[in-house]
Amino acid sequence: SGENKPDICIKKACTKDEWLTLNVGGKMFTTTRSTLTGQNPGSMLARMFTDDKGVGWKSSVDENGAYLIDRSAIYFEPIINYLRHNCLVLDKNINPYGVLEEAQFFGLTSLIDQLEEIIEMNQPANDETPIT
Amino acid sequence: SGENKPDICIKKACTKDEWLTLNVGGKMFTTTRSTLTGQNPGSMLARMFTDDKGVGWKSSVDENGAYLIDRSAIYFEPIINYLRHNCLVLDKNINPYGVLEEAQFFGLTSLIDQLEEIIEMNQPANDETPIT
Amino acid sequence: SGENKPDICIKKACTKDEWLTLNVGGKMFTTTRSTLTGQNPGSMLARMFTDDKGVGWKSSVDENGAYLIDRSAIYFEPIINYLRHNCLVLDKNINPYGVLEEAQFFGLTSLIDQLEEIIEMNQPANDETPIT
Amino acid sequence: SGENKPDICIKKACTKDEWLTLNVGGKMFTTTRSTLTGQNPGSMLARMFTDDKGVGWKSSVDENGAYLIDRSAIYFEPIINYLRHNCLVLDKNINPYGVLEEAQFFGLTSLIDQLEEIIEMNQPANDETPIT
Amino acid sequence: SGENKPDICIKKACTKDEWLTLNVGGKMFTTTRSTLTGQNPGSMLARMFTDDKGVGWKSSVDENGAYLIDRSAIYFEPIINYLRHNCLVLDKNINPYGVLEEAQFFGLTSLIDQLEEIIEMNQPANDETPIT
Repeated sequence: SGENKPDICIKKACTKDEWLTLNVGGKMFTTTRSTLTGQNPGSMLARMFTDDKGVGWKSSVDENGAYLIDRSAIYFEPIINYLRHNCLVLDKNINPYGVLEEAQFFGLTSLIDQLEEIIEMNQPANDETPIT
Repeated sequence: SGENKPDICIKKACTKDEWLTLNVGGKMFTTTRSTLTGQNPGSMLARMFTDDKGVGWKSSVDENGAYLIDRSAIYFEPIINYLRHNCLVLDKNINPYGVLEEAQFFGLTSLIDQLEEIIEMNQPANDETPIT
Repeated sequence: SGENKPDICIKKACTKDEWLTLNVGGKMFTTTRSTLTGQNPGSMLARMFTDDKGVGWKSSVDENGAYLIDRSAIYFEPIINYLRHNCLVLDKNINPYGVLEEAQFFGLTSLIDQLEEIIEMNQPANDETPIT
Repeated sequence: SGENKPDICIKKACTKDEWLTLNVGGKMFTTTRSTLTGQNPGSMLARMFTDDKGVGWKSSVDENGAYLIDRSAIYFEPIINYLRHNCLVLDKNINPYGVLEEAQFFGLTSLIDQLEEIIEMNQPANDETPIT
Repeated sequence: SGENKPDICIKKACTKDEWLTLNVGGKMFTTTRSTLTGQNPGSMLARMFTDDKGVGWKSSVDENGAYLIDRSAIYFEPIINYLRHNCLVLDKNINPYGVLEEAQFFGLTSLIDQLEEIIEMNQPANDETPIT
């Protein structure tokens, strides 16, 4: 199954995808425009980076040209990875509530559903079962 | 619920919110003035960044213009996230006492209450129950 | 057994191995060309860095000349270590699914097998055993 | 209790406390001279930074003027936080032995006692209870 | 016991120990030549840094003059700390196999023994005890 993955990658290189850097709360994330816009066309990130013109946020870049986003870098990490390969992966230390907060902020609806499911599953069973 | 979040964000961009960087114990946090002043108007951070003039701390910036704060970056992380979306999220590794220390330093009273509750809940039950 | 290791290292230094830096999602990894190409000649990384010419990705370098790779730095870490000493080591916090995702992306087939085995072993036993 | 904390902070700003950066094993920690000298006047850090003259270490600064200290950044983190607010806070991942090593190196006697107590408490009970 | 530690440190400063930076897989470690050469005179690191001449690796420095080492920064961290104070300290998250790999690479024989012991102790008891 690792066989067809390089093709995707070579395709990316061929289409000369545009590289950009996000400054998320002080930490830099380097990625491509297609990663930000490909997965969820209706999301805020997709709308922000779909084209260069007419976006209100366009002016907020730092001194190196990185796009400023006033959010948590720690919880953005699984978000950007999700956009890279359409697959949510959480490390043990990461609180899924923090990632949910970001998914909601960026309007990634498919991710919100997955995260809410994870949170529910991890919830300890409530002692609300009526005693008969 | 992810629908109305982008509006908040676009509003932020429109009002041309001022970006600034905090140098917390050597680590940089990039955020906006409204994040620091919006949530707890009476807090030290709010008072520090409410306007440009008359604040004693104003002169303490590093060589890149980042505001110097002599505190722990690790425990400031959940503090700044709390200010971003008014929601406290702690990872498993983080000792809530460390965050409480920062919440007290910055005078974030609503956060102090939440943290004290978390600490109390995590406390192992004491063996002080009198033996009858 | 630590006796013969320095020899390997001295050999490396003698052959004047070329150093290069990868910018993986914003984080820098410094390594040698032989590390990237030695282990899995058929992998994407090996093909990317086997020679300087004719590779589509060649043009994608950042302003410091680091090769841009739009992937997760956290999960790339065990990948590059694997390439360094042909041995997979995972820390407790790291979700093996995230590393598997990268192994598949880079076409490292031997690593994929190891990771799938690890994931299967960590899987809690399913309650699918038929009730007779 | 968060009420009187900002006062401490404003006092700090007013006395124009001197900012300096420590390069601990390659990682930068920005802090104030009074943080390093205030808590434990007899400690090595206090003696190093009490005044500018006559200290042997004075010449060891890196190219940015940060004071070079050949120790572990990971275990220095709780040390500097302790000096900031006179309170020891350890995250779950941190091995207290590593912090003890630093407390001993820097001669922070009050901290050494606390750390030895923590280590003893975490010790699994020994099977040395005599069998009767 | 924290009393005699500062002496060691002052001695270091007096002998004008040479500072150098290692670029281990992209992360910088600042240390002194005596740290790298003092503990295990026969190790690869000691031989690399014992004097300036005649070593094959001498030419491999990055653009800032840091010595390039194509290894994992995460697992090098406990190695360099061990060299600093002759004491092995491992955090909970760190996989000791990863550190063993580095100890073997650098030929630190005393450390290899300690790590192998730790790994053996952490091993879950095998179910190989013969059933009689």
